[in-house]
Parts: sequence; structure tokens; C-alpha cells
Amino acid sequence: MNILSTILNHRSVRSYKNTPIAKEILDDILIAASRGSNTGNMQVYSIVVTQDQILKNQLAPAHFNQKMVMEAPVVMTFCADFNRFNLWCELRDAMPGYNNMQAFTWAAIDAIIAAQNAVIAAESYNLGICYLGTTTYNAAQIIDILKLPIGVVPITTIVMGYPSDLPLLTDRLPVEAIVHKEIYQNYSPESINDFYAEKESMPSTLKLIEENNTQNLAQIFTEKRYKKEDNIYFSEKWIQVLKKQGFLNHD
Amino acid sequence: MNILSTILNHRSVRSYKNTPIAKEILDDILIAASRGSNTGNMQVYSIVVTQDQILKNQLAPAHFNQKMVMEAPVVMTFCADFNRFNLWCELRDAMPGYNNMQAFTWAAIDAIIAAQNAVIAAESYNLGICYLGTTTYNAAQIIDILKLPIGVVPITTIVMGYPSDLPLLTDRLPVEAIVHKEIYQNYSPESINDFYAEKESMPSTLKLIEENNTQNLAQIFTEKRYKKEDNIYFSEKWIQVLKKQGFLNHD
Repeated sequence: MNILSTILNHRSVRSYKNTPIAKEILDDILIAASRGSNTGNMQVYSIVVTQDQILKNQLAPAHFNQKMVMEAPVVMTFCADFNRFNLWCELRDAMPGYNNMQAFTWAAIDAIIAAQNAVIAAESYNLGICYLGTTTYNAAQIIDILKLPIGVVPITTIVMGYPSDLPLLTDRLPVEAIVHKEIYQNYSPESINDFYAEKESMPSTLKLIEENNTQNLAQIFTEKRYKKEDNIYFSEKWIQVLKKQGFLNHD
Repeated sequence: MNILSTILNHRSVRSYKNTPIAKEILDDILIAASRGSNTGNMQVYSIVVTQDQILKNQLAPAHFNQKMVMEAPVVMTFCADFNRFNLWCELRDAMPGYNNMQAFTWAAIDAIIAAQNAVIAAESYNLGICYLGTTTYNAAQIIDILKLPIGVVPITTIVMGYPSDLPLLTDRLPVEAIVHKEIYQNYSPESINDFYAEKESMPSTLKLIEENNTQNLAQIFTEKRYKKEDNIYFSEKWIQVLKKQGFLNHD
């Protein structure tokens, strides 16, 4: 399968066979991750590769006990990491100044680029993956379990393995909805209605609305999945983690 | 070329032919971007595709006048974008609660995953790219030029085109330096010395140290390229942008 087909056929896999991933394949995936662009070639990220069942079980509650964390043979936690770089600087009589929001952002970007390289490399081996957005919700727990030192913050997690069944492709907004020509073209109510029409009329959407007892799909997001009070609660926890791990502390 | 070869052969291209990118290829790259994983399938990102020479010239100062911004046929600015999603919610009598650090982080992650998909798709067409980390430094200028509304923040920029010359592969730390087995394995001074030995002894590094008149490579980062006072200055600007664009405002 060529590169574009692999990318276009991406779906999040939430159910895995217990077939292990061969070491050679895992090594290829990690090398692919390490070849991604990164900020100033500082490589300010780390990848924690967890395969031990006891550790995966410990990680599961941080990911709201999604069973794929325990089932998938490999759990990769991608971290913003200035610890390694700072240690190097200190050993070289160089004074690091990376306890701030810019440095955090560079390191988070590095971590995500590495993650997406790993994803595509894995999919080229017919492995399936799922990103776990729960990583930023319960970062403090993950830091404890994986023993992440100051300077290191988990940004995202990928579970990886051979799919036990391959879900259908998920819908996307028309590409015109996310692409802007030359400058940002803001949306009229009509264009929003047009862009969301297909998503809103899918049978699976109508079923969800009925199950959730809301008026429409948007309310499932705002009232059930990504509620304001939860977002605020987890934002406060997230900011505390960033401060505790040594970012956001420049003043 | 297969997927892994494409990923392993990635290098940042800083010099471009003026050959335009065919619309069909550009469309494929943008569709590839849109197929990436994203938070809850909310797709909270946008891609601004700038090809107009006058606009590229206007963007260049925000990227410290790197000439590739003016030379490359395509400049893509990847943005965290809750504007579209919030507009949709408001039209559906759903109350969005996304003016916070969690929502910003999800949207930034979405933007970077889309960007890296675009990069790999572009490279599969023998295009070259370079990420511009300057995006988060001068986000306010970019917001003005690209007319980004509240809810939208530029996270990274990619220039894209046919390479006029293909640079050598850049060095990377040994993959063992960035990968941790099971849990984080912290570094001893000896392991730091080992992991950085190859990078520090490269002829290009020795030349850089001489040119920069520093004692070692680490000091080039801390005293020249990523200085503490600059990082603090640009962190404060960055935080102001996030607040002004409607994130970090939950309390």
C-alpha cells in the first residue's frame, strides 16, 4: 500500500489481538519517530514504551480504564522532555532557560510530530493505533506511574497492536471546512450548516442523539463528552502539572 | 519509495525551486492532513494555505525574514481552531466551554497531527518541507496578517515546494537516548556524555563552536540560539496571544 493510501485509511483501533509486536518492527517504528522534524534539533521529547502487563494495568485508570490500555501489547507515552537537554547543558557549563511556555510548546510539538511518525510507520506494518487524549487529563497520575522527572510532561499516548477487528473509517468534515485559501475565511451560519450537514444526518449520529436524549449532536459534545465544568477542572489540573514539572515558572 | 524510507529520509528543505505545486497534489496533501486522528472527531484545527506572493512577503517578517517563506510556492499555517466548532455549537443551542488550557492543548495536538500527515504526504510526492518554529514567537503578527478570529491560534507553519537542493540528513541522538523501556530511565552524567558524544564530535559541530566562539555546543543553544531572556520574552507574548484569542480564560 502506498503512503497516501495508508494515511487515508487511518482509523482508530480500540480492540486488539494479543499477538505481540516483533522487536524489529517496534525498533523501526521508534527510529521513524526519531527522524521527525523537531525544534532546533534539540529533540526535546521522550517516548516511554510500556509492555509490562502490571504497568499497563496501573496506567489504565489514568486513561479512564479504557480496556485497550490493558489489552494492546504496546503503550507508548510521548512526553515533552527538557530534562535530558537541561542535564546536558548543566554538564557543559551552559545555563538552560527552558522553564517557560515557549519551551513547553516546542517540546509538545516535538512529541506530537514523533508520535504521528510512529503512527504512520506502525500502520505501514498493518498495526492499529489509538491516541488517548486522556493523557493531558490525568498527567499527574501518569507522571507518578512512569516516574517522569521534573522537565518531563506526558502529552499524548498511543496504544498499538494488531487489530482484532477493523472499524469503518470515521467521517470527516469536507476538507473545504478546514482549509482556508490565502487568509482565514470566516464562516457564515449557512456555511456552518452546509459543512456539518452530512455529519448531522448520518444514521449513527441520529442514533447517538436518541441514546443521549439531546436535541442535536453539538449538545452531545457540550453536555456529555466535553462539558465546560470538566474542561475547567482538568485545565486547572493540567496547569498545575505544567508548573510542578518546571514549565510556566519563568517569573 | 515505501513509507518507512520516506520517513527515514526526511530532512528540512530551506531552498526551493519556483516550480508550482499542481492543484491535484496540493488537494491530496490537504485531504491526507484531514484524515489524521483528532480530539473526539471535533477537528478543532484549520489550515491556511497561502500562495499569494504579497501575503507570503507579509508573513516573512513574522518568521524573522527567512527567505524560504517568500521563495516556497506554498506556506501552510496550521492553527488550533475552536472558532468553527463554537459557531456550530452556538447555532445548535449548545453552550461551548472551550476557553481553557485543555481545549487549547487538544486543538494544538490536532493541528500538529494534521501538519505531520501533510508533511509525509508531501514528501511522498518528492516535495520538500520545513517547519517554522517562529510561528509561536510571532503569533500576534500572523493572526493580523491571516485575519485569524478569536478561537484561532497559529501553532506551526510549513513551507513546501520542490527542493532546489537536497541537504544531507541531519544527525539525531541514538534512538536509545529518547526511548525509555517500561518507565522513564533517568540519565546519569555518563549516559548523557555517551548519548551526546557523536553529535559533539561531528566536524560541523566543531566548526560551529569555533564560529560562535563558545566552549561547546550546549552553549550555542543557551547563549545564541535559544537564550533565556528571549524565551521569557516570547513566552510572555505567547501567553498574551492565547488569552487574547480566547483560551486560558476560564476563571
